[in-house]
Amino acid sequence: MKSWLPIPPRSHFSLLNIPFGVISSKDKHAHRPAIAIGEHILDLDAFATGGGFSKAANVSSEHAKAFSQPTPNAFAELGRPVHRAVRSYLQEIFLNDTPHPDVLKDNESLRKAALRPISEVSMHLPFAIGDYTDFFAGRNHAHNVGVLFRGPANALQPNYSHLPVAYHGRASSVVVSGTPLRRPWGQALPAPGATEPVFRPCARLDIELEMGMFISKPNDLGSPASVKDADEHIFGYVLMNDWSARDIQQWEYVPLGPFNAKNFGTTISAWVVLADALEPFRTKGLENEVQLQKYLQESRSDNVLDIKLEVSLAPSEGEKSTITRTSARNLLWSWPQMVAHHSISGCNLCAGDLLGSGTISGDEAGTVGCHKFVYTPPPRVPTRFLPNTSFSSTYHNFSKWRPKYMLFALE
Amino acid sequence: MKSWLPIPPRSHFSLLNIPFGVISSKDKHAHRPAIAIGEHILDLDAFATGGGFSKAANVSSEHAKAFSQPTPNAFAELGRPVHRAVRSYLQEIFLNDTPHPDVLKDNESLRKAALRPISEVSMHLPFAIGDYTDFFAGRNHAHNVGVLFRGPANALQPNYSHLPVAYHGRASSVVVSGTPLRRPWGQALPAPGATEPVFRPCARLDIELEMGMFISKPNDLGSPASVKDADEHIFGYVLMNDWSARDIQQWEYVPLGPFNAKNFGTTISAWVVLADALEPFRTKGLENEVQLQKYLQESRSDNVLDIKLEVSLAPSEGEKSTITRTSARNLLWSWPQMVAHHSISGCNLCAGDLLGSGTISGDEAGTVGCHKFVYTPPPRVPTRFLPNTSFSSTYHNFSKWRPKYMLFALE
Repeated sequence: MKSWLPIPPRSHFSLLNIPFGVISSKDKHAHRPAIAIGEHILDLDAFATGGGFSKAANVSSEHAKAFSQPTPNAFAELGRPVHRAVRSYLQEIFLNDTPHPDVLKDNESLRKAALRPISEVSMHLPFAIGDYTDFFAGRNHAHNVGVLFRGPANALQPNYSHLPVAYHGRASSVVVSGTPLRRPWGQALPAPGATEPVFRPCARLDIELEMGMFISKPNDLGSPASVKDADEHIFGYVLMNDWSARDIQQWEYVPLGPFNAKNFGTTISAWVVLADALEPFRTKGLENEVQLQKYLQESRSDNVLDIKLEVSLAPSEGEKSTITRTSARNLLWSWPQMVAHHSISGCNLCAGDLLGSGTISGDEAGTVGCHKFVYTPPPRVPTRFLPNTSFSSTYHNFSKWRPKYMLFALE
Repeated sequence: MKSWLPIPPRSHFSLLNIPFGVISSKDKHAHRPAIAIGEHILDLDAFATGGGFSKAANVSSEHAKAFSQPTPNAFAELGRPVHRAVRSYLQEIFLNDTPHPDVLKDNESLRKAALRPISEVSMHLPFAIGDYTDFFAGRNHAHNVGVLFRGPANALQPNYSHLPVAYHGRASSVVVSGTPLRRPWGQALPAPGATEPVFRPCARLDIELEMGMFISKPNDLGSPASVKDADEHIFGYVLMNDWSARDIQQWEYVPLGPFNAKNFGTTISAWVVLADALEPFRTKGLENEVQLQKYLQESRSDNVLDIKLEVSLAPSEGEKSTITRTSARNLLWSWPQMVAHHSISGCNLCAGDLLGSGTISGDEAGTVGCHKFVYTPPPRVPTRFLPNTSFSSTYHNFSKWRPKYMLFALE
């Protein structure tokens, strides 16, 4: 697929990708949906308003109106066939031998209005997130954590293989990659065996490498989404870092689960890759040995995605060290199973809801997705620390993730 | 406080109340904010548009514009001094000897546009709820539950008296009183000691009597709200029923807390009573014997509300039995302490976020706020059961709560 627009050969944003995000620019502060292509973005509001979708057979003017919203929530709600039609049409528009050169290729005024270098725009949270749920579907991670607490024989809880364990997370503090986060303070036990907590800055901050998934088609309250139809409820995927304050978590989490340990910030990538773009990477997930309840049984076995994931630390410009290489195939539960389980009680999922996979770890050295965030504060206060830590995926169709954040040692 | 509008003597909606809700009507489907007064509602959108606030010294036209939104979120965000000014002004407007008779009392066209019988409108969720958090601040309830699991000596977990334990709940399934809910299905262990789950309709559905609180002024991500200023972040209160599927909870909740057991529905009352209206009911909460961290220490001891609460079951018209009488004073943690703790990690609270108190129980017979929902399905399928269960508060300034719901036995 060759484009008339120059796309660098190893770009994350080839014609095969077409990820969705939310932009603003210096000359137009309003947030609006866009796609990334090579080193450019296409402003979908400007493109739609300028008649860009007029030649699209399967995209009505009603559909195109969804792009006049500040987020792609309304577009997501239109359902997967519409997402597919829009992606195909946009691929067509950027093809070297596009059947519609008058739409953009030869239309200078629309190019000027809608197409601009990615370096000229600011990226924002890619959806208005209603609810955020984090699963625990990475069995290798669950096993590693379980071994620490209970030894290898009882590492996994009895329910683990029967249902995708999850908790409701905090939606308001989900931020887009690059948003500074403040090191949380909280209560923690000062030493093993202590019974009185102290109040201090988190002393054990973990990163957790996850994938996130955005919901498209909603299901009504009281009407579960079946595992068979769950793919139709999936919009697309992001990379996610579930920052976790482990010392706070250890003291607070009994009996109702993690709270302050997780609610100070969750970072996601700015570009959402459509489910259709990742179809070629379907593969088999981890083997589950128990007999599943019918509502969790899938007819296809290639139910997870083989997305290569890396965690790198880049403490200063030009310095980078990769500490994890793994794959998103390391899940016991597929995304359709998570959707089916989440809604089996009747819970309604809405367009723009975010589901996290849980930490993704492999089972070999160098594949662990959860790390203590190691940092050395400067010797004197005020200690402000801004590592240019970079999480990126080596998967060429996936979007880059470059979170930038601040840790303040407040005393 | 006498009004020119007839208000029945024992109305929940006296001039001392002025609660906020969201209405629609047959002639106007759009949702808009309203207040309740006696057996009428005042449509705040129509009132503001018709110049109703023109005589209000401390309510600007910018403030009044907030009522043209479908929910009171924008109004809540304006902060407590504005809520206070609007409430005082509306009380004035309805006074028998109102200083502004031309605004409504003697203005037939505005009365016709904005004032109508409460029986003519439908009530909706009173806010667009961003995030919902449920606390566990009712110590008597926490103790009762703990005794069941661990005996009286270890009933409360070590962290319980040091911090207000909480979990993030599901916002999308919070519904307004009167919304039918479907009996959830889920995985549960068929008998004590069983190791393989079965999939079935919930066999142990509990009601949990709570109070809910809506956030007004937001705090920024990374900037905790102090306990001293937390009152300024409180908009007002509702009654809440945290439906809980205990058999599903018991199997799923280790190690990340309740999920499907709680996410199928949470019912709140339609009218939100402003914090100012409840100031006269301040009292001392339960004694906490531990030395609190400074961020949880309050300067005033009358930090909770003595709101009388009742749970009644009314299985058929005219039949009603009160099963609980208690008070919202039975909390170990105050609402300002909950706000301070929620945000101490840096978590941002937003206008329209809902916080629940946790189940409120007294420590005497007949004061327990958590009950197994007892019902007898008809002898033959299809079994559809519609009890007109009524939860109401005896507090004369509080709003009535009449949830109506359906339980379907699906097989």
